[in-house]
Amino acid sequence: MSFDRLMEKIASLQNPTVAGLDPKLSYIPEGIRRASYEKYGKNLEGAAQALLQFNKGLIDALCGIVPAIKPQCAYYEMYGWQGVRALHDTIAYAREKGMFVITDGKRNDIGTTMQAYATGHLGETEVEGESFRAFGADALTVNGYLGTDGIEPLLKVCSAQDAGIFVLVKTSNPSSGELQDQQLEGEETVYEAMGRMCEKWGAPYMGQYGYSSVGAVVGATYPQQLRELREALPHTFFLVPGYGAQGGAADDVAPAFDKRGGGAVINSSRGIMCAWQKEGCGEEEYAAAAAREAVRMRDAILAKIGKITL
Amino acid sequence: MSFDRLMEKIASLQNPTVAGLDPKLSYIPEGIRRASYEKYGKNLEGAAQALLQFNKGLIDALCGIVPAIKPQCAYYEMYGWQGVRALHDTIAYAREKGMFVITDGKRNDIGTTMQAYATGHLGETEVEGESFRAFGADALTVNGYLGTDGIEPLLKVCSAQDAGIFVLVKTSNPSSGELQDQQLEGEETVYEAMGRMCEKWGAPYMGQYGYSSVGAVVGATYPQQLRELREALPHTFFLVPGYGAQGGAADDVAPAFDKRGGGAVINSSRGIMCAWQKEGCGEEEYAAAAAREAVRMRDAILAKIGKITL
Repeated sequence: MSFDRLMEKIASLQNPTVAGLDPKLSYIPEGIRRASYEKYGKNLEGAAQALLQFNKGLIDALCGIVPAIKPQCAYYEMYGWQGVRALHDTIAYAREKGMFVITDGKRNDIGTTMQAYATGHLGETEVEGESFRAFGADALTVNGYLGTDGIEPLLKVCSAQDAGIFVLVKTSNPSSGELQDQQLEGEETVYEAMGRMCEKWGAPYMGQYGYSSVGAVVGATYPQQLRELREALPHTFFLVPGYGAQGGAADDVAPAFDKRGGGAVINSSRGIMCAWQKEGCGEEEYAAAAAREAVRMRDAILAKIGKITL
Repeated sequence: MSFDRLMEKIASLQNPTVAGLDPKLSYIPEGIRRASYEKYGKNLEGAAQALLQFNKGLIDALCGIVPAIKPQCAYYEMYGWQGVRALHDTIAYAREKGMFVITDGKRNDIGTTMQAYATGHLGETEVEGESFRAFGADALTVNGYLGTDGIEPLLKVCSAQDAGIFVLVKTSNPSSGELQDQQLEGEETVYEAMGRMCEKWGAPYMGQYGYSSVGAVVGATYPQQLRELREALPHTFFLVPGYGAQGGAADDVAPAFDKRGGGAVINSSRGIMCAWQKEGCGEEEYAAAAAREAVRMRDAILAKIGKITL
């Protein structure tokens, strides 16, 4: 089961965090951008190749410290198919370096279409009897608004490929409560109902460390809900965005973990990618600055939760 | 406003339908596939190029009959970045032929990330002061689970680019009711609340025919809800999936329209793409068969709703 592999990486590195790779051109050192434009042109291709080079430097610096990366599809699609190729190449490079890859796509659709997303992002695409990994991530974020038949096709692929999904439950943004916090008839909120569905969907796909292949996205910016959901959903692994730039701190994310320091992975994107700008160091040190920030984040969280055991 | 352009195309062709381009290899004539594999290899690239050739044939045959296409991202992502390039090329080709393009991506995320999706799919991406259209569709389907701040960045891009969005309200799949039909405290269902938000989000972006840039996805498979939503959401343009292969018929979709035959566009994907297989005609006739099916669908719907006036 996919989150077993993630748990093992987290325990072996003693680091329950994931580096969000949501690169913008403004985060990328000028030297990398200039070299890319000279080679590929000042266009979508040149921009996409700059993103890829930036990511590779980060992955090299982080792969011995951080167990996972989370590339956000939007920041690649923004640069067209050339950007999407950079997403593919980033995923492949991170996996070569032994990292666990969570593609943040928040995909959702009806069953037959979800089968295509599952195949593309987590599974193998068949072309006349031969199989190809189109993107080949270890996990994918998804949105459960369409209910069970938009989730089931993913579970079959997860099972076959040792992959996992994270379903949006309580998101980190300011307006997440507009729909998610609304009370349903049976005294539960929309996000609680979605969490309950995660436990149900995951039940047949349980890993050896007590977590299923169906995880949940729960924002660091709502620590009270995070605490309640941790208790209510004992078999659901949490992906926790919102740390750092969005306002979440180590105290806020501590309730996401179980007693062994397991069950959750905390994402930081801008904090890590832009560490060189925040530190004010030379741009050639961007990857080293990212690693320093990753260590600070790891230490701040470990100080709250202690040693992580399997 | 974007749906003004769509309304004008619908009225000029007297056809309120959209051809869903969700190609699978099994829908594509063997001759097209074989030629593509010979040129590009039996791999993701060969498959993606076969999709593109198939789509171009359909667009050539349909552009004088059907006002719009709706490519579904999943079926392109399934073939990797090569497939996503075929999506880009399909959009560009359809727009060259004067068709309105709805990219069916059901995208959703927090505000800053949604800005990137909006830019990529509907807007212009800036690279060092120069602008490029990464995908350049006329409209994008989105999921509103994250609330207002996941929608607002889209509206700015829609306004600047004369584009529109369709928010998932009541989807066509069997389990859509699990969450969407649940009753909230104020006596409305989740899908009704989402529909109400569409009216609110769209209010500042009203077009000359009475519809805003914020449309809604409402499935043909739930005709009663479709009828109620048409009444409740007078300024919300409907994209209606579920006609044909999913079970919806002309009677079911008639309630989606206003008294002038406006306010909605009905999608058919498999019915049109696979018409040649259903008719049992020669594969070289696949595009002509698609056009014949598009005419049958148009005539069946027009027989229910009468002449479309602006």
